[in-house]
Amino acid sequence: MNLHNSTHEQLLSPRGTRASEQPISQLMSAALANPGIISLAAGFVDNATLPLEFVSEAAQNVLSDTATGRLALQYGTNNGPQELRQAIAQRNFSNNADDLADRMILTAGSNQLLHLVAECVFDEGDIVLCAAPTYFVFLGLLKDMGVRAFGIEADDQGMIPESLDQGLQQLASNNELHRVKSVYLIPYCDNPGGSTVPESRRHDLIAVMNKWQQQSPILLLVDNAYRDLRYSGEDIPTLTDLGADPELTVESGTFSKNFGPGIRVGWGVMPRWLFDSARRFKSVIDFGSAHLNQQLMLNILKSGRFDEQVQRLQTAYAGKLQVMLEACDTHLAGIPGVEYRRPIGGLYVWLELPPGVDAGSDSPLWKQCIERGVLYVPGEFCYPSEGAAVRKNTIRLSFGVQPESQIRDGIKLLSEAITAVMNPANV
Amino acid sequence: MNLHNSTHEQLLSPRGTRASEQPISQLMSAALANPGIISLAAGFVDNATLPLEFVSEAAQNVLSDTATGRLALQYGTNNGPQELRQAIAQRNFSNNADDLADRMILTAGSNQLLHLVAECVFDEGDIVLCAAPTYFVFLGLLKDMGVRAFGIEADDQGMIPESLDQGLQQLASNNELHRVKSVYLIPYCDNPGGSTVPESRRHDLIAVMNKWQQQSPILLLVDNAYRDLRYSGEDIPTLTDLGADPELTVESGTFSKNFGPGIRVGWGVMPRWLFDSARRFKSVIDFGSAHLNQQLMLNILKSGRFDEQVQRLQTAYAGKLQVMLEACDTHLAGIPGVEYRRPIGGLYVWLELPPGVDAGSDSPLWKQCIERGVLYVPGEFCYPSEGAAVRKNTIRLSFGVQPESQIRDGIKLLSEAITAVMNPANV
Repeated sequence: MNLHNSTHEQLLSPRGTRASEQPISQLMSAALANPGIISLAAGFVDNATLPLEFVSEAAQNVLSDTATGRLALQYGTNNGPQELRQAIAQRNFSNNADDLADRMILTAGSNQLLHLVAECVFDEGDIVLCAAPTYFVFLGLLKDMGVRAFGIEADDQGMIPESLDQGLQQLASNNELHRVKSVYLIPYCDNPGGSTVPESRRHDLIAVMNKWQQQSPILLLVDNAYRDLRYSGEDIPTLTDLGADPELTVESGTFSKNFGPGIRVGWGVMPRWLFDSARRFKSVIDFGSAHLNQQLMLNILKSGRFDEQVQRLQTAYAGKLQVMLEACDTHLAGIPGVEYRRPIGGLYVWLELPPGVDAGSDSPLWKQCIERGVLYVPGEFCYPSEGAAVRKNTIRLSFGVQPESQIRDGIKLLSEAITAVMNPANV
Repeated sequence: MNLHNSTHEQLLSPRGTRASEQPISQLMSAALANPGIISLAAGFVDNATLPLEFVSEAAQNVLSDTATGRLALQYGTNNGPQELRQAIAQRNFSNNADDLADRMILTAGSNQLLHLVAECVFDEGDIVLCAAPTYFVFLGLLKDMGVRAFGIEADDQGMIPESLDQGLQQLASNNELHRVKSVYLIPYCDNPGGSTVPESRRHDLIAVMNKWQQQSPILLLVDNAYRDLRYSGEDIPTLTDLGADPELTVESGTFSKNFGPGIRVGWGVMPRWLFDSARRFKSVIDFGSAHLNQQLMLNILKSGRFDEQVQRLQTAYAGKLQVMLEACDTHLAGIPGVEYRRPIGGLYVWLELPPGVDAGSDSPLWKQCIERGVLYVPGEFCYPSEGAAVRKNTIRLSFGVQPESQIRDGIKLLSEAITAVMNPANV
């Protein structure tokens, strides 16, 4: 989509020129053009679960007191209130909360944290290793910055340590190890694969990182956005708690998925050498994120409402995940070559079609689905352009937004569309 | 100040390496180290004027209704709600509100708007022309990006059109016109000079821009942050309303100064060729600013509370400006060679000392002031490093934060410090 029609486009920087419509925008356009469509695409959270009364209560608590109210409406600091950083550190890590809080920056969602780290570490032509598939907005950021994304094979337990080792070996053999700046990992209920990296594999990934970090400083960039959205099994410690090198590890998280996206508070812990740059850079790009929202989240954490909300979300989404998996069992399991993962949390189910069936946004399947009234995210959007092969026969399904009946109907429509394109005579 | 002590600093990108402590951070450190000090430095707003009850009311309005509440806590769009963009366009421009709203992006304060435009237009080694003095956080952004800031002479009516013409001529003579990407202008009650560009000079500045824009596309980047903080005189139309080329003009503004910094809602209108890039880039850096805050501001604008708050601020700050100017008349006017401007609005009074008196952060005057208990912003922080000469004998005084008695005391202490360094025998 090119809406440019002026002669002044020449003024755009290389970055401005590279900035391009994200896949998600195409999907939104498709959704808007077909208002009756069942969207299993958007990663939005369930409207019915949004904590209106908790935010309202927190606003009253914070603003009815002159001291906290004035604090909240005045400028904050570049990295956010210490009390909130402490609370986040205590909640997410088993020890060293003081040290972690001191190296934490609060941002506008974890997206902005990823951007901030990217600005301070990545240069045009650098290489970042990501699971294949991975979070497509992060891929968009890398693309706009002129950074190469290199895909590492992943399965239902996340990034495969042996594949990471092989990928790094391949880049080293090509004399490109010095351009490898980071490995990006989503260890909990990841977007889009729905996989959670088990503790043993976390140790193996750390071992591979350690091995290569001895040759070249490579940053482990960990995105814990979905950690609290776990509906079964036990919680697993962070990479940091399991011994990842603190001098080369960034841990990030957000209150968007586990509380409410509109409140837009995210965070990241990073080594001191990076923290100093990132905090200072944040001071020139937005002078610190909205202090009001930080004070609201602090109040919500302290009052216990956050825990209440997480439990509410876990209950609601566990039911929806169950509905989606049952619908998949009913409608998709019988189609030869169709496979799907059974995640323990998050908002997504990852679906693989038979190798020959293209699910891309120009494919017959996509058109069939739009016509029949169901929308999904083509898996191809989630693959780095280098490294592990792009699997065009994949689909990300989200169960976050739709009510249960729509999830069932959407999966049924999807199964009919798949059957139709696999048996063209029946279309 | 260098806190780096790790071997991994080598991982920093050029931008990460350039990111350096901003002047304002040094000032904050000085303030924190001397808790009893009277700070006439910080550009914060007056705590006593913060609209706690209006934000609280808006939170109730927005969150007590299921539809607006869910909207506010869900993800918004990358450039923010159309209704809010429309309201901002109608308030700030005399016509074409629909068109302007369509080309508007809502950001985290106007700082983030400046960053967004900078990312999409400026490249390392490019040149941006700014008034000398100008907003030092913007200078910090340019520095971190490796962009050259070139100073243009300014007086109490803002940037001087003839000086702008001469500066562009000088750069053209050096074959550097192709590196000139933008002219940055703060036409209302500017930070730090306190100047407002009169209508006739706005026309002259537009004429100079037009002349040079015929040779090279140069973006006019207008920062209207202080427009509503006017305490006397008539409002003046924007550069856009006065005929600046819409294809090469960005207008920005914020609700930080005229309402509350903690709410962090800013905006910018830009030509379509830039808007497309900037909106898309915003989608990868933070996925759109906090939707809750945007819905709160929309409610506050619609309810009329915003106008109430602006009037309250105008009354409060008019009184404080008067107190500061009277204190200057009492304590500073009699010192030979000391001059100060009499702004019609904003938060700052710009002070010029005799040519030989250095007000820099390493100067005897600075040390005298810290010892005596008053803090100011050294004017030198506000000067671009090229073009118009840096005047180290200048000071930015802010009357926003301190109560009236402290403003009086602060100016008295400052006058004593100035007298002391001008008569070293008396120290």
